[in-house]
Amino acid sequence: MTLDDVTQRLRAFAAARAWEPYHTPKNLVMALSGEVGELTSLFQWLTPEESDAWREDPALEANVLDEIADVTLYLLQLADRLGVDLAAAAHAKIDRNEVRFPPPDQSNATTSA
Amino acid sequence: MTLDDVTQRLRAFAAARAWEPYHTPKNLVMALSGEVGELTSLFQWLTPEESDAWREDPALEANVLDEIADVTLYLLQLADRLGVDLAAAAHAKIDRNEVRFPPPDQSNATTSA
Amino acid sequence: MTLDDVTQRLRAFAAARAWEPYHTPKNLVMALSGEVGELTSLFQWLTPEESDAWREDPALEANVLDEIADVTLYLLQLADRLGVDLAAAAHAKIDRNEVRFPPPDQSNATTSA
Amino acid sequence: MTLDDVTQRLRAFAAARAWEPYHTPKNLVMALSGEVGELTSLFQWLTPEESDAWREDPALEANVLDEIADVTLYLLQLADRLGVDLAAAAHAKIDRNEVRFPPPDQSNATTSA
Repeated sequence: MTLDDVTQRLRAFAAARAWEPYHTPKNLVMALSGEVGELTSLFQWLTPEESDAWREDPALEANVLDEIADVTLYLLQLADRLGVDLAAAAHAKIDRNEVRFPPPDQSNATTSA
Repeated sequence: MTLDDVTQRLRAFAAARAWEPYHTPKNLVMALSGEVGELTSLFQWLTPEESDAWREDPALEANVLDEIADVTLYLLQLADRLGVDLAAAAHAKIDRNEVRFPPPDQSNATTSA
Repeated sequence: MTLDDVTQRLRAFAAARAWEPYHTPKNLVMALSGEVGELTSLFQWLTPEESDAWREDPALEANVLDEIADVTLYLLQLADRLGVDLAAAAHAKIDRNEVRFPPPDQSNATTSA
Repeated sequence: MTLDDVTQRLRAFAAARAWEPYHTPKNLVMALSGEVGELTSLFQWLTPEESDAWREDPALEANVLDEIADVTLYLLQLADRLGVDLAAAAHAKIDRNEVRFPPPDQSNATTSA
């Protein structure tokens, strides 16, 4: 059960309901943004520390799982519509980030060993 | 090269820079939201039809690939911090959506055949 | 009945419920972001043209008025907490935009008159 | 120098550049969402306490003023396009919130007086 399977299910789901015409990149970006907004609202009044204890509140836990799933569903549908391989795009971005944010110099620590 | 590999690289990347203390769920949700905002801004003045032609503008193409990658990176880091399996959460949500949005009845079409 | 009056009411509202400790800039930005997400979701499947006809659907009209009000309430609370005069900040930004985006040259039109 | 004046300036600004066709409610909501994303990104790694000290970092201060202005500019343009009086909508929403979130009972405190 992988994210690729999810994409296949989402294609069938949209096709069965004739929703593809609505799934333009512009519209899917808005849907993604709306779901991220809902996810954001779940954490807005929590301290950063409290946000790590989200599993302790069963209602919050269910809502977080629901909203992060919605975010995932729209990101996958957007990537599918755009024809973008998310794993490839993500790896390429980490490659760029490794140049942009070099790790701190470890030479002092290593030369003392 | 999968999304699981991306998560592993992101863990090492954050560890090498001592960034884990910043990566609370609250903060990662904000970072995700910020990147979705940047992705949104790329499509804001386009018509839905124009948004499907994003590959025709090389600058737009590069920006979309960059921003959708950033969204993916933060979603994966958030899921990792939360300990959530995105594929499982996504499948469970589609299961719920199939009940919530039943497909239109096909019986008229089939009985007339 | 002005936006300054709204700010005063919001201060009293938060004080009566002892909510001020939650109203840090970080938290209020998240709340603003969450409400903008809800507003976004109302327009996500509409064409740009349909989005101008929002008053024709009474349920949509009520939801838009509700969500744009929520966005306004959090923007005002954020500005109040930050001590920012939104009108002054907005005017200053338009001043900068006038330099950044000069209007198209009108000289052809005027010299032919 | 009021927010109503800002709206007037924004109308003239858009007219001089022939931007009105782009300013549908759908597009303006996306623009608003994008700017809120930029504002969010400024606070994402700060603790709630640090977010109250934003004026102490001149670069952060300038960025916050810039982004909150952008949010305001798009909210005002959206309200103008929708024909919504933000102050009236905000007051009506506070009226509803006063019913929805009654203040804590003060009777113990008052009866003991």
